Amino acid sequence: MEVQQNAKETGRVEAFSDGVFAIAITLLVLNFLEADLVHKSLDDGELLSELIHLWPTLLAFVTSFAAIGVMWLNHHRIFSHITRLDNNLILLNLLLLMIVTLVPFTTALVGPYLIYPDRHVAVIVYNGLYLLMALAFHALWHYARHRHRLLGEMIDQQSAQSITDQYRFGPLFYLLVFALSWIYPPASLGVNLLLAVFYALPFSRKHKSEKIPQHPDTTQISPENDQQEKNVPR
Amino acid sequence: MEVQQNAKETGRVEAFSDGVFAIAITLLVLNFLEADLVHKSLDDGELLSELIHLWPTLLAFVTSFAAIGVMWLNHHRIFSHITRLDNNLILLNLLLLMIVTLVPFTTALVGPYLIYPDRHVAVIVYNGLYLLMALAFHALWHYARHRHRLLGEMIDQQSAQSITDQYRFGPLFYLLVFALSWIYPPASLGVNLLLAVFYALPFSRKHKSEKIPQHPDTTQISPENDQQEKNVPR
Amino acid sequence: MEVQQNAKETGRVEAFSDGVFAIAITLLVLNFLEADLVHKSLDDGELLSELIHLWPTLLAFVTSFAAIGVMWLNHHRIFSHITRLDNNLILLNLLLLMIVTLVPFTTALVGPYLIYPDRHVAVIVYNGLYLLMALAFHALWHYARHRHRLLGEMIDQQSAQSITDQYRFGPLFYLLVFALSWIYPPASLGVNLLLAVFYALPFSRKHKSEKIPQHPDTTQISPENDQQEKNVPR
Amino acid sequence: MEVQQNAKETGRVEAFSDGVFAIAITLLVLNFLEADLVHKSLDDGELLSELIHLWPTLLAFVTSFAAIGVMWLNHHRIFSHITRLDNNLILLNLLLLMIVTLVPFTTALVGPYLIYPDRHVAVIVYNGLYLLMALAFHALWHYARHRHRLLGEMIDQQSAQSITDQYRFGPLFYLLVFALSWIYPPASLGVNLLLAVFYALPFSRKHKSEKIPQHPDTTQISPENDQQEKNVPR
Repeated sequence: MEVQQNAKETGRVEAFSDGVFAIAITLLVLNFLEADLVHKSLDDGELLSELIHLWPTLLAFVTSFAAIGVMWLNHHRIFSHITRLDNNLILLNLLLLMIVTLVPFTTALVGPYLIYPDRHVAVIVYNGLYLLMALAFHALWHYARHRHRLLGEMIDQQSAQSITDQYRFGPLFYLLVFALSWIYPPASLGVNLLLAVFYALPFSRKHKSEKIPQHPDTTQISPENDQQEKNVPR
Repeated sequence: MEVQQNAKETGRVEAFSDGVFAIAITLLVLNFLEADLVHKSLDDGELLSELIHLWPTLLAFVTSFAAIGVMWLNHHRIFSHITRLDNNLILLNLLLLMIVTLVPFTTALVGPYLIYPDRHVAVIVYNGLYLLMALAFHALWHYARHRHRLLGEMIDQQSAQSITDQYRFGPLFYLLVFALSWIYPPASLGVNLLLAVFYALPFSRKHKSEKIPQHPDTTQISPENDQQEKNVPR
Repeated sequence: MEVQQNAKETGRVEAFSDGVFAIAITLLVLNFLEADLVHKSLDDGELLSELIHLWPTLLAFVTSFAAIGVMWLNHHRIFSHITRLDNNLILLNLLLLMIVTLVPFTTALVGPYLIYPDRHVAVIVYNGLYLLMALAFHALWHYARHRHRLLGEMIDQQSAQSITDQYRFGPLFYLLVFALSWIYPPASLGVNLLLAVFYALPFSRKHKSEKIPQHPDTTQISPENDQQEKNVPR
Repeated sequence: MEVQQNAKETGRVEAFSDGVFAIAITLLVLNFLEADLVHKSLDDGELLSELIHLWPTLLAFVTSFAAIGVMWLNHHRIFSHITRLDNNLILLNLLLLMIVTLVPFTTALVGPYLIYPDRHVAVIVYNGLYLLMALAFHALWHYARHRHRLLGEMIDQQSAQSITDQYRFGPLFYLLVFALSWIYPPASLGVNLLLAVFYALPFSRKHKSEKIPQHPDTTQISPENDQQEKNVPR
């Protein structure tokens, strides 16, 4: 009973987290909805120039969208290996979600400042939140994988190790972006964007052009498959 | 293991996409919430005329609601054939979702301009975003179906072809709408609306008047079944 | 294959609809967030009286919350009987969701007018939207059950009939509420609230104190059950 | 038929509730988006001091995030034992969700008042809502477990009792926090935060260091299993 319990709980934590990720990423559009040009009726020339001047808002939007989207991918990547929950994991996950929820705020904050290379606070706060996000994610994974604490039995050491390796430098990278915000703010957003793409990559290496294995042993953790087994006459 | 992994990932990408679609479509109401008449107390005559003057907001709302709703339908239609993920597909999907997320902004933008047939920028931006959406959707499907890259084994060439045929002219149609925004903005929204309805149609052709097979072996409405069939030796 | 296809699509339509219902019902809080007293710092006396003057906003909030919540219940009640989709059903469902999405707007609109018994437009628009919602829901159910078009085979005529009977007078009731908004606005909201509760009731009659039947025949339509069957040694 | 019906309905009530919890918790960020400093371009010194002055908003945000997050955890904890629905349970659940939906409002309200130890109304309203939440949750659980009304057959008396014990003092604790708001508002928020953490704890005791059973018959992590067990003749 407890095992299903846990399985159900894991699914729920993922579903709840999905909801928060999806809402936070969609709320990013509010930064445009609150732009001055909305609900006005300017002539074509004025509107065009107003729209062009939204480029910092757009850059911040794209960067944050990529950052949240990729964090969502990686959140799922590690949760596909986590099969048990404990209280600390749930609290670490809530902490991560709390940071994600704040992204629309820092994104709204940073826009107007990208045109002033000499103003750093907004960009520092913006990149600082991503640094915290990377640290929370780091903590989440290391807590779960420590002495194989909450991982399923299907996951091999090598696969767990590859995840560990990939995320090892995450906090460091975001620390560099954080530092870069002191030097040239717009550049730090660009690097931030590249980091997001970089963190999307390993996901592909793992999934690209898989073939469907035939032997039943590989078919443990999916609902479809214990069905398949049951349908294969023995 | 990888297969379930993928199956689970596909389900997650769909669930996350569903969330973004549902939130974006619901945020469209914000354009009304930010209308001037809200939180005031006008007398009946004033309020009535204020409400009547909201017609452009309503037209933009209905058009965007239909566009997002139908894009959601088609997103699911193709994902019901996509059984494997790779990094590029995930990034293309995030790109599509990013465009969808921007719709509430362009919808808020376009309203006030529909009463000025001589102002085109807002409507061009509005229809331009749908053109981008059609292109991203086009890319998503063609990437997935190219050399049957990520499609399941159950999907027959003919069915894949019919989808391809349906969407072949999508970008072209939205390009025409885009062009029309230069000529007569309100009309372009009308055509946009018709396009949405058109793209909803083939869905019905596929599903209308299905009969439920009588033999119990198909265990009525469970998604696992086409998998089971695969596994039952014939 | 089509059957599963449809089953999957039904599940998706329900999941997407759930999302829209959940977001629309939660956005109702925006009416409070946009109240004047927020982000101010009044002394205790001022704040208290400001809060007391929010009673119309609260009444509108509670009424709308009940209306959407119960519409969600009934939406699920009928979808638990709908096992096939066609294009018209999907469009009717999108129409219903579009109306639901507008509720936060009419709710924001109606608040300030409840203190003026001689101002009717806002309340008429508010109740008018619910009339449209009732009509769309009516159409959705009647389209699905007409000549048993899209219903599963498990549903007995009597059960389908009981649903039909329950909803027969829905549009009429909301028409009466609509009429009542001309006479005494606050009362119409009260009746609206009673209607929501009334429409929640039959749900209970159906579900209260069910016992778990042991014979396998009753176990068709649930994913758990074809599993159960497979687990029963043959 | 009814059993699956109920199972499906329980799942739907949980999914809908998850949606509302996830949206309400994410809308908390709106309090920052509406802060004065957003969409301005202040110099670094001004922005920094503006950000520092947001501490009450941040404290309210963290407290509410923890409160909603933990309420979500406990909502799931009890729903993992509830296997049947009736109308009253659904209405009690809607009542709980309505209270949760109001949290972003009281959170927006309380921020500015934390710097005035002599202003209590906002904090009283804030903590009062949590008192109502605790009472609604209390009612929900006691209604469900009364004479084992809606609980599954798998749950043992002791486990149900342990939940009852944990929540026995919930309303009392929130009553104390409520009282504390009269004495020193900021402290009451702190205690509120501690309560949230306290209510997260028992969850862990239940789940910490579970072992996965080795025998394949339990088909690892599928929620359907306790049902299967029921159906396997013993």
